[in-house]
Amino acid sequence: MDVQTYMLGVGKQARAASRRVAKADTDAKNRALTAMAQAIEREAKRLLEANARDLDAAKKKKLDAAAIDRLALTAKTIESMADGLLQIAKLPDPVGEIIGLKYRPSGIQVGQMRVPLGVIGIIYESRPNVTADAAGLCLKSGNAAILRGGSEAMHSNQAIAACVHEGLKSVGLPEAAVQVIETTDRAAVGELITMRDYVDVIVPRGGKELIERLLRESRIPMIKHLHGVCHVYIDDKADIEKAIRIADNAKTQRLGTCNTMETLLVAKGIAQKVLPPLAKIYLYKGIELRGDEAARRIVPKMKPATEEDWRTEYLAAILSVRVVDGLDQAIEHIATYGSQHTDAIITEDITRARRFLAEVDSSSVMVNVSTRFADGYEYGLGAEIGISTDKLHARGPVGLEGLTSLKWVVLGDGHIRT
Amino acid sequence: MDVQTYMLGVGKQARAASRRVAKADTDAKNRALTAMAQAIEREAKRLLEANARDLDAAKKKKLDAAAIDRLALTAKTIESMADGLLQIAKLPDPVGEIIGLKYRPSGIQVGQMRVPLGVIGIIYESRPNVTADAAGLCLKSGNAAILRGGSEAMHSNQAIAACVHEGLKSVGLPEAAVQVIETTDRAAVGELITMRDYVDVIVPRGGKELIERLLRESRIPMIKHLHGVCHVYIDDKADIEKAIRIADNAKTQRLGTCNTMETLLVAKGIAQKVLPPLAKIYLYKGIELRGDEAARRIVPKMKPATEEDWRTEYLAAILSVRVVDGLDQAIEHIATYGSQHTDAIITEDITRARRFLAEVDSSSVMVNVSTRFADGYEYGLGAEIGISTDKLHARGPVGLEGLTSLKWVVLGDGHIRT
Repeated sequence: MDVQTYMLGVGKQARAASRRVAKADTDAKNRALTAMAQAIEREAKRLLEANARDLDAAKKKKLDAAAIDRLALTAKTIESMADGLLQIAKLPDPVGEIIGLKYRPSGIQVGQMRVPLGVIGIIYESRPNVTADAAGLCLKSGNAAILRGGSEAMHSNQAIAACVHEGLKSVGLPEAAVQVIETTDRAAVGELITMRDYVDVIVPRGGKELIERLLRESRIPMIKHLHGVCHVYIDDKADIEKAIRIADNAKTQRLGTCNTMETLLVAKGIAQKVLPPLAKIYLYKGIELRGDEAARRIVPKMKPATEEDWRTEYLAAILSVRVVDGLDQAIEHIATYGSQHTDAIITEDITRARRFLAEVDSSSVMVNVSTRFADGYEYGLGAEIGISTDKLHARGPVGLEGLTSLKWVVLGDGHIRT
Repeated sequence: MDVQTYMLGVGKQARAASRRVAKADTDAKNRALTAMAQAIEREAKRLLEANARDLDAAKKKKLDAAAIDRLALTAKTIESMADGLLQIAKLPDPVGEIIGLKYRPSGIQVGQMRVPLGVIGIIYESRPNVTADAAGLCLKSGNAAILRGGSEAMHSNQAIAACVHEGLKSVGLPEAAVQVIETTDRAAVGELITMRDYVDVIVPRGGKELIERLLRESRIPMIKHLHGVCHVYIDDKADIEKAIRIADNAKTQRLGTCNTMETLLVAKGIAQKVLPPLAKIYLYKGIELRGDEAARRIVPKMKPATEEDWRTEYLAAILSVRVVDGLDQAIEHIATYGSQHTDAIITEDITRARRFLAEVDSSSVMVNVSTRFADGYEYGLGAEIGISTDKLHARGPVGLEGLTSLKWVVLGDGHIRT
């Protein structure tokens, strides 16, 4: 069977299944999630065996250590996959909520009902735990899912899918509600992102190369994450102790996450006070500093920053530092070089805080908080399918609500328009 | 200057202007809208002259009567353009509203702020009044607009644009906040729908051909309207008087609108009672009826309906009629042939009404109401930029809120993540 025919079949089954899950009741969905978690715990040994096959192949292909680390399942990651599903079972069901139902002068009642999007295509790279997470989030939000994992994780993903299917079957829901694509042919992605009749939204979870391919080729709306060039701006009215604590945490708590600060902006009025102690912390923690001229006059150990640095998401032990005149230049810098992900101001001045919140056009804007908080769990979404840097539909951390939309509900008693 | 260079300039100016309008305060925006309305009223004669030039050219090009009717401005349409802008001035400002600001266990406060989308590209066909409507809605929602009207309305659109610019200037806002594309070269559309750095969303308002081109070529997210194959389902537990009133109104109140009923579904248990009087009304009003076999047995004057009829948006004096077994078959029919626009059930049975509302996946679902109510004004949005049949971001009538999105706002007092 060719890939196109295979994918068309997957799409048609997903569409049919989506109507079944859309009307599944909360209890059935929660029982299915619980059964999935139980199957994953019970089959831990089988999951580890399947994962070992993937790991063997990966080593033979000489994948780098980081990729192998992402691919590996352990007793602990398996337990946290199962836990994740149980957590999703505990979240409120977003489907069917009716908001704002009001009478209009014509006598009709108009409101909006939260409904599933339909069929969600998820394209992800090596981490196999995404298979369980994404399946759980799509099911709870009443959507069918088509999952396309990395070819290097094929056996692991299939083994997890078997547990997911067991959970669906246990409550009488169709297995096609969550389908894991069974071919490693790259053409399958090409089909998935153009089957407009069968797929309502694409959620890519992968690197820049994947996103750029999808931006060129996808004919289906996406909820996507481009990159995170996050800023902390230390205003000259900042509390120095808070500024140091947050700027330290935003960069060093974890280096490789999208909400990690990549550029530190410091107002010139406070730079002399705040940069030396901060530089000491960063250098002690092994962070390479790249500064503009003004910053390097204060901390000569900094390397010179280039234009390219301001645009770079390092995801590594590197930080660029710029001294700015004040709030206006900070906002301008973020508008020019930022990625509209997460940006924070450190200040005690409420007028500047208000301006920063209003004028910085990023998915998360923060006052006196570390950028590391930009995360579905920290925001109270319970779980997240990803972080969106798009402007339409869902911005920032995307949880169950981001996988739904609102349709209009109109009630009357024989009302006609005149 | 070539089209690409010209459009790039338009895009860059729009992006810069979008930051100015995003932070314009409510009063400035309202004063600009009022000044635009005044300019339009004052310049009525000039607008009619410009329109006369377009009409002359259209007649020479032998455009059909309907197209010329859409193109024509009159003293009355000019007044209603000005009124529309004053109405928009009276609507609440959606920008900056903060919702759901709550404390999290970590001590941070998390909420969402409503913000403009940025730059909105609007592609529309002959009606020149869209120039004023779209400019007003984009400004009030804090967005910059790039307007591409039909080439046949070029002089009218430029004359309206002059009034819009006068309004913007009167409050110190940049004219580039609303740009009307000055070339009739079709390549300009190709540029507009691919300038991802400068345009955040495309709103097409035009026929199927335009939408299909954009679906193929656009690289920018769209808020769009595909078509409206709207259904009324008369359940066998319907009140017959309400059923007849609504089914009459949904088809005959206006024939050419997207929320007009195109297919009537009738439960077999009530068909004998409801179809003969309804057919009498329709035939009296000159509506051609096309029925399935069961419907034609009851009303022999119906022509036979083909498979194609169920999928057709007539926008004309034609109605297809099908007798179904009951609710399940009605829902199935709508899922198979509908366009997810607007569908209504007529029933006194609450269980069936609840199922119809939950299971029919359309942008508006209605109980005992004419589909003709699917409209921004009737829903209380005050004005609409269009009706969306998309599932992401905005479904159904799209008003000011549909031209905004929500960003996350996080407040703390030196909070770091541990």
